[in-house]
This record gives sequence, structure tokens and C-alpha cells, in this order.
Amino acid sequence: MAATKTYLTGIQTSGMPHLGNYVGAIKPALEAAESNDTLYFLADYHALNSVKDPEKLRHDVRSVAATWLACGLDPERTLLYRQSAIPEVFELATILSSVTAKGLMNRAHAYKAARDRNAEAGVEDLDAGVNMGLFNYPVLMAADILVMAADVVPVGRDQRQHIEYTADIAGSFNHIYGSSYAFPIPRGAYPEGEGSMLPGIDGRKMSKSYDNHIPLFLPAGRLKKLVRRIPTDSTPVEAPKDPDSSAVFQLLSHFADEERTAAARKRLEQGGMGWGELKNELFEVLDATFGPMRERYDALMEPGSELDGILADGAARARERARATLARVRSAIGIA
Amino acid sequence: MAATKTYLTGIQTSGMPHLGNYVGAIKPALEAAESNDTLYFLADYHALNSVKDPEKLRHDVRSVAATWLACGLDPERTLLYRQSAIPEVFELATILSSVTAKGLMNRAHAYKAARDRNAEAGVEDLDAGVNMGLFNYPVLMAADILVMAADVVPVGRDQRQHIEYTADIAGSFNHIYGSSYAFPIPRGAYPEGEGSMLPGIDGRKMSKSYDNHIPLFLPAGRLKKLVRRIPTDSTPVEAPKDPDSSAVFQLLSHFADEERTAAARKRLEQGGMGWGELKNELFEVLDATFGPMRERYDALMEPGSELDGILADGAARARERARATLARVRSAIGIA
Repeated sequence: MAATKTYLTGIQTSGMPHLGNYVGAIKPALEAAESNDTLYFLADYHALNSVKDPEKLRHDVRSVAATWLACGLDPERTLLYRQSAIPEVFELATILSSVTAKGLMNRAHAYKAARDRNAEAGVEDLDAGVNMGLFNYPVLMAADILVMAADVVPVGRDQRQHIEYTADIAGSFNHIYGSSYAFPIPRGAYPEGEGSMLPGIDGRKMSKSYDNHIPLFLPAGRLKKLVRRIPTDSTPVEAPKDPDSSAVFQLLSHFADEERTAAARKRLEQGGMGWGELKNELFEVLDATFGPMRERYDALMEPGSELDGILADGAARARERARATLARVRSAIGIA
Repeated sequence: MAATKTYLTGIQTSGMPHLGNYVGAIKPALEAAESNDTLYFLADYHALNSVKDPEKLRHDVRSVAATWLACGLDPERTLLYRQSAIPEVFELATILSSVTAKGLMNRAHAYKAARDRNAEAGVEDLDAGVNMGLFNYPVLMAADILVMAADVVPVGRDQRQHIEYTADIAGSFNHIYGSSYAFPIPRGAYPEGEGSMLPGIDGRKMSKSYDNHIPLFLPAGRLKKLVRRIPTDSTPVEAPKDPDSSAVFQLLSHFADEERTAAARKRLEQGGMGWGELKNELFEVLDATFGPMRERYDALMEPGSELDGILADGAARARERARATLARVRSAIGIA
């Protein structure tokens, strides 16, 4: 572990990722794994705060794990594990609670957003519908990170506060117990934001909340239909077009190689390529890129596939780290 | 487990119990163990919310365990274990958080008392000094109880709300997941309160907060000195006295056999017995009662005594219950 930095990422398990997730999160994470120690975990107990359907939760977790593996995650290189497979996380969260000021949680964005929604809806009790899982979320996330003694946590900018809270909580612990054990203070790594600009099928930023997303592993027929739904103007085939104003072209340029992208740009600008043809190009490129991954995904999702073994192996290796941290923490606080 | 009721008691680890604790809590608990399945745990992670000195925490936990064993707890019959030895508790607390309304915690007595203290002190931020361990306390206590599928929880009346909260939280879980797994709803068992009337050395109710308590296992010399400090009036030796107005006599009547108590009462009422002689009686009775226990306590507190083995054995047996519960819960929520 010496000088190498350890990267930790929590993966939300809310259904199948879409193209925007792939470009903005999965691909950069897989690239980071090539030159760093990486631990990627499926945040299934975070999901439990909102998903009360056991079958859905079970499916979502396997599906997201299969997706990352199909996208190329190498489980030899990256420890892929379920949060729920690391009991040390929950014990550490209990320990961290004893050094975490409640005031910090009062100011957490996700909690305040829930209160704001109640206020806007005219609900008198601003805590209505807020469960303790949501309120404790930042403590559990701190435990996820600190139990692995992670150095770097690549997250979206909306997660910046959680990283600051983790550093705060670790600092409180270190202030009291630092002579026996001190957590390394993790830092966040924030994306440049290029990936998040991927347009959805309505031209706005691709997002599940806009319902304008293209899921990663669609059967070819459904993928084709979604691509056809991307709005275009009525410029005739032979007229020159501005490629950069088109969501279809923007998507193509993310997934096609430079040559193919340049050729399409030229034909659009000169006239002679219609939107329909461009959509066919996009479909072909997406299908060629994600088709083989989709097959791998489907195989992993079969009952009895190697998926569960991969997750169990990742968990066993991650638990070694977690056990080592927790043993030192327990000794420092006087529990062991 | 079939028809037998399981009793669970959490033992605070805040230093050596006193005579009032013995009469009000330890003795009734040991009597309950004669005819019930009993699980008694040392609530060391609850203590962590206030005890930040690792050496003190370590000592307190061993000391309280040694005290209960010295008082006669039979570890074959009663599972005596440390809360911190049952990781399933902390994972279950995480799960329960997802079905626990934050509003419930807002109304918890201990939390509200902390806010009231801030308000009285003129502190603007009512959450100042409140840590998340205190705020989460009722959820963790619910996990302590529910992970063991306890039926009955004997507690002081000040803990009644925690039992109600545990029932509420179990009810929320059962409402959502009850078709797969439902927690038995525990009930509280509240003492008649006789034990808590034991007077301290200033005549008020014996309590650490009044600093008027007689710790259980004092060396004879210190015990004698404490007994001598109990205030008495200046009625001469030969004058008749009212035994029931005397804290010394009240203490004696709790620990001496009936014959001895009756003899003392008679001599006091008739005159001829002075307060000094009564104090000697009380000292003798206390020393005879607790002297042998003190020796056992001292032996258990030696490094390398069988204490740690007893706690490890209790934990191993308690964990079987906890594992069985957690496995069913995990399956019900879709984590396993």
C-alpha cells in the first residue's frame, strides 16, 4: 500500500446506467483503475433508504455489478464488492457517530433538500417522510471511505459536501484518538464535467430524472427506436447543416472514432447527409460499441453465473483492509 | 426457543455499581435468570458516546462484567456478552434506520433533555454538544433488542420510551417486510421501585449523581468509613429510637436476615442501642455479604483471569442468535 494512492468509489445501485453514466462515471473510473489501487463498491444499504422492494433491490445490485464488469472492470485489478458484505462499515459508522456533531448532519444538503420539499408542499412537519437512514447517510458514507483508509474519492460535484464531512468526522476522531490511530484524511476528485454534457434524446442533458436517457444495454430494436426519437429539424437531406447543434451528432462524436466523426461532420456541413442517415450511423456505432458488452451483461445476469463469485472474492479482499482498520480503531477507542 | 420467554437487559458500564444498583437491578436480574432465558449485555458502544478515555472505557467494561459475575451471575445460564462483540447489532441498526422516522428521534427524552440543558444555559444552538451517537441511541437500542428477538426487556421506568420506540421501529419493519420476516414485538418489564428507595449516606435516595452512594466492593476500611458518615441524630444510647426514620436501619433491613433486623429494631425501640453500635452492625452485615463477592471480583479483575473467556463464550453463543435473526432480515429486505 505504501506510496500508492487508493481510490474508492461508491456506486449507486438505482437501475441500469445510461450512456451519460458511462461517459461521465464508468469510463473514467475504469481508466483510473489502470494506474491506481481501486475499490469500487455497490452501495446497497444506501439504496435501502428508498428501495423497499426486496426483489427490485436484489435485481438492481446484480444488474449494476454486471454492468460495470461488462463495461470492462477487471476484478483482479479493482476490488468490486457490496457494501453489505463489509460488516466493519456498520460498526465503524456506530463509532464515528460518537464523534460526529448532530449539527453537521442538520446542514447536510440531501437532508435540507427533503425539508425544503416539505416546506414547498406546505407540510408543517419539515421532517415528514425523512427516515434516519437519510439523516445518517453522511456518517455511513464516512465509514465506507474511512474503513478502507482511502486516499482519493472520485465523486460528482454534488457529493463534495459528503467528502468534506468525511474529512471533518475523521478530523474529530483524530483529534481525540490520534495518538493511537489517525485516519488518513481523504480528498475528493471531481470530474471536469465533460461527460455530464452528454445530451439525452430530447436534447437536454441526459438524466434519468428527465426520462431522456439511453440505457446502456438495450436490445438492438429498442436502441434503434430510442435513437430515432431524438428530435431533429426539417432541414432537407441535401442542405448544409450545423453538426454541433444536433444532439445526434454530439452523441456520435462521443462514441465513434475520430475518422468516422470527421466524415459525418464534413457531409453534414456540405449537405448530402440527412438526419435519418446520421441516426443510422449513431445506432450502428452504439450497437457496435455496446452490443458485445450487452452479451457479456446478459451472461453475467444468468442465475449461477460467475457474478456472485466475483463479488464474494472482492468482498473477501476488501474485508482484509476493513478488518485491519477496525482493529486499530477499536484498540484506540478502548473497545478492544 | 419455542415457548420460553427471552429476557434481554443492557447493562450500563459507567463504573462500579453501588448498593442501590445491587438491590434495584442486579439482584432482581439474577433472580429472573433462575426461571427465564436471559441475555445480559455490556453496552460498551453506548458508553462510547460519553467516555472518550480508552483506558477508562476498557476498565469500566471489565469492572462491570466482573461485578455481575461476582454477584452470582451464572454464565452457563445467562449469556453475558459485550455489545461490541456482536457486529450484527450495528448492521441491523443501519437497516432499522431505513424504516425509522427521524421525527421519532426528535422526540426522544434523552435528546430533548440535552436541548433543554442548552436552552437553560442560554446556548443558541440547541444541538450544541449533541453527537450523533446520542441522537441514534434509540435506533441502536432497538437493534440490541431486536437482533436477539427478545420478548421481555426489564428496564427502569426512565427507559420506557426506548421500549416503545423499539416496538414502533419493529412495527414499521414488520409493516413493510412482515410477509418475509417479522420481529417479535418486545415488551418492557418495569420494577416495582422498592429497590430504588435505598437511602444513600446522606439519607436521600442512593445515587451516583448525589455522590451519596456506597460502591459494592470497597475494602473493609473504606466501607467502614462510609458507613460511619451516615448522619444520625444525637439521641443518647439508652433512649428509645424510631428505627424507620434512620437510613442506617433501612440499609440494615435490606441486607441483614429477618432475625437480626428484628433484634436491632427491638433494641432501638426499647432504648439501649446507640447509632454507633447500629453502624457497626450494618458494616458487619455489608462486609459479610459483599466481602466474599469482593474477593471474587478482585480475582476476576486480575489480568489473565477467566473473565475474558467468559465474555467471549457468551458472545459466541449470543452471536448465534444474532446471526440467525440478521440472515432472515437480510433475506427479507433483498440484501441477501
